[in-house]
Amino acid sequence: MDRGGSTVYLLDTTQEVPMKFGILGTGTVGRTIARKLASLGHEVTMGTRDPSATKGRSEPGAWGAPSFADWYAANTDIHLATFADTASGAEVLVNASSGGASLAVFEAAGAANLAGKVVLDIANPLDFSNGFPPSLSVSNTDSLGEQIQRAFPEARIVKTLNTVNADLMVNPASLADGDHTMFVCGNDADAKGVATRILAEDFGWKDIVDLGDITQARGTEMYLPLWVRLYGKLGTAAFNLKLVR
Amino acid sequence: MDRGGSTVYLLDTTQEVPMKFGILGTGTVGRTIARKLASLGHEVTMGTRDPSATKGRSEPGAWGAPSFADWYAANTDIHLATFADTASGAEVLVNASSGGASLAVFEAAGAANLAGKVVLDIANPLDFSNGFPPSLSVSNTDSLGEQIQRAFPEARIVKTLNTVNADLMVNPASLADGDHTMFVCGNDADAKGVATRILAEDFGWKDIVDLGDITQARGTEMYLPLWVRLYGKLGTAAFNLKLVR
Repeated sequence: MDRGGSTVYLLDTTQEVPMKFGILGTGTVGRTIARKLASLGHEVTMGTRDPSATKGRSEPGAWGAPSFADWYAANTDIHLATFADTASGAEVLVNASSGGASLAVFEAAGAANLAGKVVLDIANPLDFSNGFPPSLSVSNTDSLGEQIQRAFPEARIVKTLNTVNADLMVNPASLADGDHTMFVCGNDADAKGVATRILAEDFGWKDIVDLGDITQARGTEMYLPLWVRLYGKLGTAAFNLKLVR
Repeated sequence: MDRGGSTVYLLDTTQEVPMKFGILGTGTVGRTIARKLASLGHEVTMGTRDPSATKGRSEPGAWGAPSFADWYAANTDIHLATFADTASGAEVLVNASSGGASLAVFEAAGAANLAGKVVLDIANPLDFSNGFPPSLSVSNTDSLGEQIQRAFPEARIVKTLNTVNADLMVNPASLADGDHTMFVCGNDADAKGVATRILAEDFGWKDIVDLGDITQARGTEMYLPLWVRLYGKLGTAAFNLKLVR
């Protein structure tokens, strides 16, 4: 936490209690989640390997996004810290790192800092090493969500949000008035309860389906090849699945 | 074709031309597809390894379905033949065999009999060898649809219908008035056109999304782990995805 003076408000409109969020990752997804949570009055810290280096990054982000330096200067209510400090200070963590980096990011965050924490794992194990389209680096009989849960058994991993793009994650109502579906899975019922409340109350998800334990991350991660193709086909990431039943 | 005397009608209601269908496989899925197509006036032959043996099967089918002998006796407008005769006599084939058996079934049908034929591949490479839930015997960088297309390059494989259960395949309107999505993919545009017409005009699918070439079968087959879980969770197979965009 290298930026003091931020005030956390209790929002009258929602009567929610502000929480301390730690976002692991500073890319587009992390920024989108951080901006949304901060706008709602939550205390938000983004984690990175080397905060000074990250703050100095002046090259543009992906897809024409602003540099991190510019983005950080414009979002004065968001803190930046090491992965470890971010994890230790947070009540709820969001894994917004790229799938290939996630296990190293959690390692840097530290098992002790992760113990007992609710972690929304929104990453996908996309492997671009053979070009486009990506394959999955883990699938079928295992998943990234399970790998993280196994490596950090005291963290309370909830796999969710990995089936939509960042804008839809935090604003599902922007598509079809929110008439589409989000999945959650994880081993800890209380953690799923916290995650579901964030999805519903902070982000506005109306249809949230609990698939069961963390092994169900296989199913939602294995949707990614279809997602990638639909993205190419539709020419927009503003789409999602509705579970019709 | 061991049962003569069947008459094919030109249906006044649809003005469709009856076609000769061959269904590879005599299980629940094959029977459901066969019954629907025959009811619409198409000429339908089911393929099996040994027609005499299949006709004699008096043990009940899966999930309490009637024995094949009883079912066959009750469906006098449907023919039974070898895989080879079924393939050779058909204009359009449907692969309704189990995924693990599909390549052997196509081998028995014979490359020469498959050449030029439109084949709706509706099977999934489910592997139950380690119990339930099944994993996929092929996924991520390959798919059953691609395996079949590679092994029989002159067949015109269209992957479709593998994302829903048999009843929904032929009667999508039974769920939410048909307001949900079916995918097709394959290398042959004309074959996809034939498949799409069958889906729309014979079965009633309203939202059919062409994903591209046969490699897209990876995406729809990799949806199966999620499907299997949703089936368990919902307690019914009467569900599907709607692509909201």
